[in-house]
Amino acid sequence: MALFALGAGLHEVVEASLVGSILGTILLVLGVSLLVGGRKRDRQRFELRAATAQSLMLLLATVALVMPAIFQLVAGGGLPDPTAKAVAFPSNLQALSVGVAVVLLASYGAGLVFSLKTHAQLFNPSHDEDEHGGEPWSVRKSVLMLAGAGAAVGWMSEILVHSITEASAAIGLSPFFVGVIVVAIVGNAAEHWVAVYFASRDKMDISVNIAIGSGAQIALFVAPVLVLASFVIGPFPMALVFNGFELGAVFLAVIIANEVTQRGESTWYEGLQLLAIYAVLGLTFYFV
Amino acid sequence: MALFALGAGLHEVVEASLVGSILGTILLVLGVSLLVGGRKRDRQRFELRAATAQSLMLLLATVALVMPAIFQLVAGGGLPDPTAKAVAFPSNLQALSVGVAVVLLASYGAGLVFSLKTHAQLFNPSHDEDEHGGEPWSVRKSVLMLAGAGAAVGWMSEILVHSITEASAAIGLSPFFVGVIVVAIVGNAAEHWVAVYFASRDKMDISVNIAIGSGAQIALFVAPVLVLASFVIGPFPMALVFNGFELGAVFLAVIIANEVTQRGESTWYEGLQLLAIYAVLGLTFYFV
Amino acid sequence: MALFALGAGLHEVVEASLVGSILGTILLVLGVSLLVGGRKRDRQRFELRAATAQSLMLLLATVALVMPAIFQLVAGGGLPDPTAKAVAFPSNLQALSVGVAVVLLASYGAGLVFSLKTHAQLFNPSHDEDEHGGEPWSVRKSVLMLAGAGAAVGWMSEILVHSITEASAAIGLSPFFVGVIVVAIVGNAAEHWVAVYFASRDKMDISVNIAIGSGAQIALFVAPVLVLASFVIGPFPMALVFNGFELGAVFLAVIIANEVTQRGESTWYEGLQLLAIYAVLGLTFYFV
Repeated sequence: MALFALGAGLHEVVEASLVGSILGTILLVLGVSLLVGGRKRDRQRFELRAATAQSLMLLLATVALVMPAIFQLVAGGGLPDPTAKAVAFPSNLQALSVGVAVVLLASYGAGLVFSLKTHAQLFNPSHDEDEHGGEPWSVRKSVLMLAGAGAAVGWMSEILVHSITEASAAIGLSPFFVGVIVVAIVGNAAEHWVAVYFASRDKMDISVNIAIGSGAQIALFVAPVLVLASFVIGPFPMALVFNGFELGAVFLAVIIANEVTQRGESTWYEGLQLLAIYAVLGLTFYFV
Repeated sequence: MALFALGAGLHEVVEASLVGSILGTILLVLGVSLLVGGRKRDRQRFELRAATAQSLMLLLATVALVMPAIFQLVAGGGLPDPTAKAVAFPSNLQALSVGVAVVLLASYGAGLVFSLKTHAQLFNPSHDEDEHGGEPWSVRKSVLMLAGAGAAVGWMSEILVHSITEASAAIGLSPFFVGVIVVAIVGNAAEHWVAVYFASRDKMDISVNIAIGSGAQIALFVAPVLVLASFVIGPFPMALVFNGFELGAVFLAVIIANEVTQRGESTWYEGLQLLAIYAVLGLTFYFV
Repeated sequence: MALFALGAGLHEVVEASLVGSILGTILLVLGVSLLVGGRKRDRQRFELRAATAQSLMLLLATVALVMPAIFQLVAGGGLPDPTAKAVAFPSNLQALSVGVAVVLLASYGAGLVFSLKTHAQLFNPSHDEDEHGGEPWSVRKSVLMLAGAGAAVGWMSEILVHSITEASAAIGLSPFFVGVIVVAIVGNAAEHWVAVYFASRDKMDISVNIAIGSGAQIALFVAPVLVLASFVIGPFPMALVFNGFELGAVFLAVIIANEVTQRGESTWYEGLQLLAIYAVLGLTFYFV
């Protein structure tokens, strides 16, 4: 879907959906997971170092978003308007975007080495599940859920991208709000479902990994791949320059996700606070 | 006092005193408490999760301050001047402020459920005091201190608000400095006194709760109530749009308060650092 | 070298090298140390409270950089251009800079009391080394290394400052990039060498102290001394107003260094993330 929008030159729609997906995973999905998981429990614990590695990925991504924006502001160009469709930036900003995209992809690759090889035990706490029995079924069940939800999401996304203009015009929502909130909620339905399911079974390691990990994956893998792809697909390259709302929202959300995950335990109230922050961001986007 | 200023249409004075109260509690009151409490001790410990819940409230409040400001900046309106008395904002910014105020109040209400019901034991470490004996007297004493200081503060505030213009003109202080620093120090005298008293007795749980909790209460309860009240009282509604100094100061102070409270222990040097930060902010405000 | 540039009125060069040194120590030196130290180890531990005290110093320094910038922006003056040589600011901004410099120096002095007197045991974990034996040699060796590297650095710096314009013109690098990246890497060679050496021997306490401590020393001691010295040396006083790139980079780097050091343990991946962030900043500076 993102590639389709890229081909059509709708850079701002692509960027809004990237930001929306990051906000959706680290505020909405994590918030609902902590809230549902912590409902009848005093506290829930999760592996601190896995969460920290992924939160750091998000901080790296924040630096990668903020510095090109400062570049553009110092050059006197101004950030793109949220109602624009696509903005062409000077060639040095495009070169900077490519360089930053390569750094992000390299860091993502190193993160795979970290999570799959050198510190795989942090991300795969299978000893936990051995104690309960029946976990092969649980894994198969979760894979089936994931596959089912994924198929549903793909189908819904396809509909969405075709009807995005009509739907938003009909209900009176701005295209920006639809891209950054509505599309993101639908697009993260699979992660959402699975993360909340595991949170309610007190498997917060898996929940937090899904929520923060999905956000990190979008920021360090999907976003740079789209930047590089934009040199081949579409009318002109996409630069990593986001508008003021997107920058402020991602920056604040990442700082807050770091604060929430860094103690390795959570309560329902922290989940509710994440949802309140998502609500404030959503309200602001609604009035854009 | 805030309602009085609201009735007179002095929105900027109200906002300065809100920001000043938040800065005063989380930098000055907390700083003096950590400094005095840590003077003859290697370290002081406090309940981590109670402090975290309240620090998160402050982060939510920061989002609620920053997003409307971005809204105003992207719309090309510019932030209010620190020397202005009141600024009228477009109606969509007022609607946004009301929506954000409702979210903040809802989160504050949920925080009461958290601190009084589901996790009351974190905020009421009475088992600690049982060990020492004599705590009924201590509670009564602290209530009396609080009542006495509160009465004194109310009387002083009344004087202050009437003489704010003359006093600042006489000493050569700008109204902004008086509102954000002088009024806040006087207004927080009660919290200040009690927090330092408990810190010196190594009851950091109570001290940190008073300091961070007061800041959170102002941000999540007093501020949104004033926004909603401004639709009834005063010439025109007050929007949640603060000036650049207020935004920068609250944002940095909240980030730093989070860093200080998140380990559940403190030293005198951390208190001194908070005071140094308060001094830098005060100096900046002095030259406005 | 900084005093030389100050005498020549090259304020922006001085400020770029200050920012470059802070970024170099807390991102590059710390990053390489964590990466090399964590290469063959699951995790490395270090004393949390020593690192926290120094990270807080960096946060104080950030406040001291950001507030004068807000002052300048609200006054409508605009931040200095990265290609400027020196900018004269209004006298109230100079007075503010002096006041902030005095607060920073006072906080640095209190930090010495903290690290040398009241909490010296945190910064001098000699009990650790007793277990290994042979530590007198190790200390002598490290002092010799430090002296040798220091002499080499002094000599190289002298060459650098004389040839900075020619070199940058010849290779096509902008003076800003040379000041903020090249000079800083050379200037921190000594700290770099020693920090990585101790990290590889799993003495992370010393490594983290060198990296974060050097950054804090530059921010709270070197920078304010240069501001005060600029009233005696050079054509006109230097204000603490940095350009947008410097502000954004220091702010983000300090936040991230805080996140990395606050758990008291590290992995190789965190080191690599710090290097990735340094790479993104370097790329941005390259295109300025």
